[in-house]
Amino acid sequence: RPVREVLFFPSKPSCTEALLAEAESPDNTPVPCPCPLPRGDCAFSRLLRHLLSARRSLELCLFAFSSPQLGRAVRLLHRRGVRVRVVTDAQYMALKGSQIGLLRHAGIQVRHDQESGFMHHKFAIVDRKMVITGSLNWTTEAIQNNRENILIMEDAEYVQPFLEEFERIWEFYDPL
Amino acid sequence: RPVREVLFFPSKPSCTEALLAEAESPDNTPVPCPCPLPRGDCAFSRLLRHLLSARRSLELCLFAFSSPQLGRAVRLLHRRGVRVRVVTDAQYMALKGSQIGLLRHAGIQVRHDQESGFMHHKFAIVDRKMVITGSLNWTTEAIQNNRENILIMEDAEYVQPFLEEFERIWEFYDPL
Ligand SMILES: [Zn+2]
Ligand SMILES: [Zn+2]
Repeated sequence: RPVREVLFFPSKPSCTEALLAEAESPDNTPVPCPCPLPRGDCAFSRLLRHLLSARRSLELCLFAFSSPQLGRAVRLLHRRGVRVRVVTDAQYMALKGSQIGLLRHAGIQVRHDQESGFMHHKFAIVDRKMVITGSLNWTTEAIQNNRENILIMEDAEYVQPFLEEFERIWEFYDPL
Repeated sequence: RPVREVLFFPSKPSCTEALLAEAESPDNTPVPCPCPLPRGDCAFSRLLRHLLSARRSLELCLFAFSSPQLGRAVRLLHRRGVRVRVVTDAQYMALKGSQIGLLRHAGIQVRHDQESGFMHHKFAIVDRKMVITGSLNWTTEAIQNNRENILIMEDAEYVQPFLEEFERIWEFYDPL
């Protein structure tokens, strides 16, 4: 059965430390996080879990990317050998708190627009078979405070056009 | 077969006058528009067409709504007897060019948030069976200049959660 989920935000505050720590070192028992946030499932933890399911490739096409947890997740996928490619908006990239610098520093390929309009997409493609897309920018503000939606879909009819759009933009933003 | 479309923007400039004029008075031959824009299908005309297919109900949950053509389409649906309900973001609503005042003036029910976060959704539900959702705000700027996506879906698994989200927000923003 293909994944077909709709998630709404704001997400309840919850601790995602165990999720990230386990993904970082699956063989170690994670040290319990001392923070007071409740554990358990929420829209944000479901987003993280789907992202962390990547084994081969991850394409990100994101207007705004400043969530530290999502940044940590993407860097750990890169270290695990997942091929990560990121496209982002030049205007937003320069803002304080953007994760883009950290991704580049980690050796992840990033390309950005040179256009006057915004690169306003907010989608991710996991292993070329799952698309995550919606209104949600990858910022803590949006995750915790805004009314937002994301769809998580494995229907080929929806995934394929996003793959093609990513490749189009990736080529178009080629700096060479 | 359920509708399953993915549209990408920016949309090619194209004249949508015939589409709107025909929807406004289906019995008259529309006067040809004198503008120089090309005719024919584009992402924006497909969005308009799906919207104009509404016969009974239209729910709009939109962060930003300033496109004059989309505003005209929504007002004509209201005149045609479609039950239109609109939820929007209070911060954006006050900006110049917002269509919200015109919708209210036409007698369409509008509710807005009283919250600190943004009401950042951008979705529409047509006849309770088709959802239109994505990154696209309903502004001319976004339609013509930004890289954006919308999904147009009739899968009940995707439509139903958006219907429930709309009703939740509609009740929550009840001014009474
Ligand atoms: Zn914690
Ligand atoms: Zn024209």
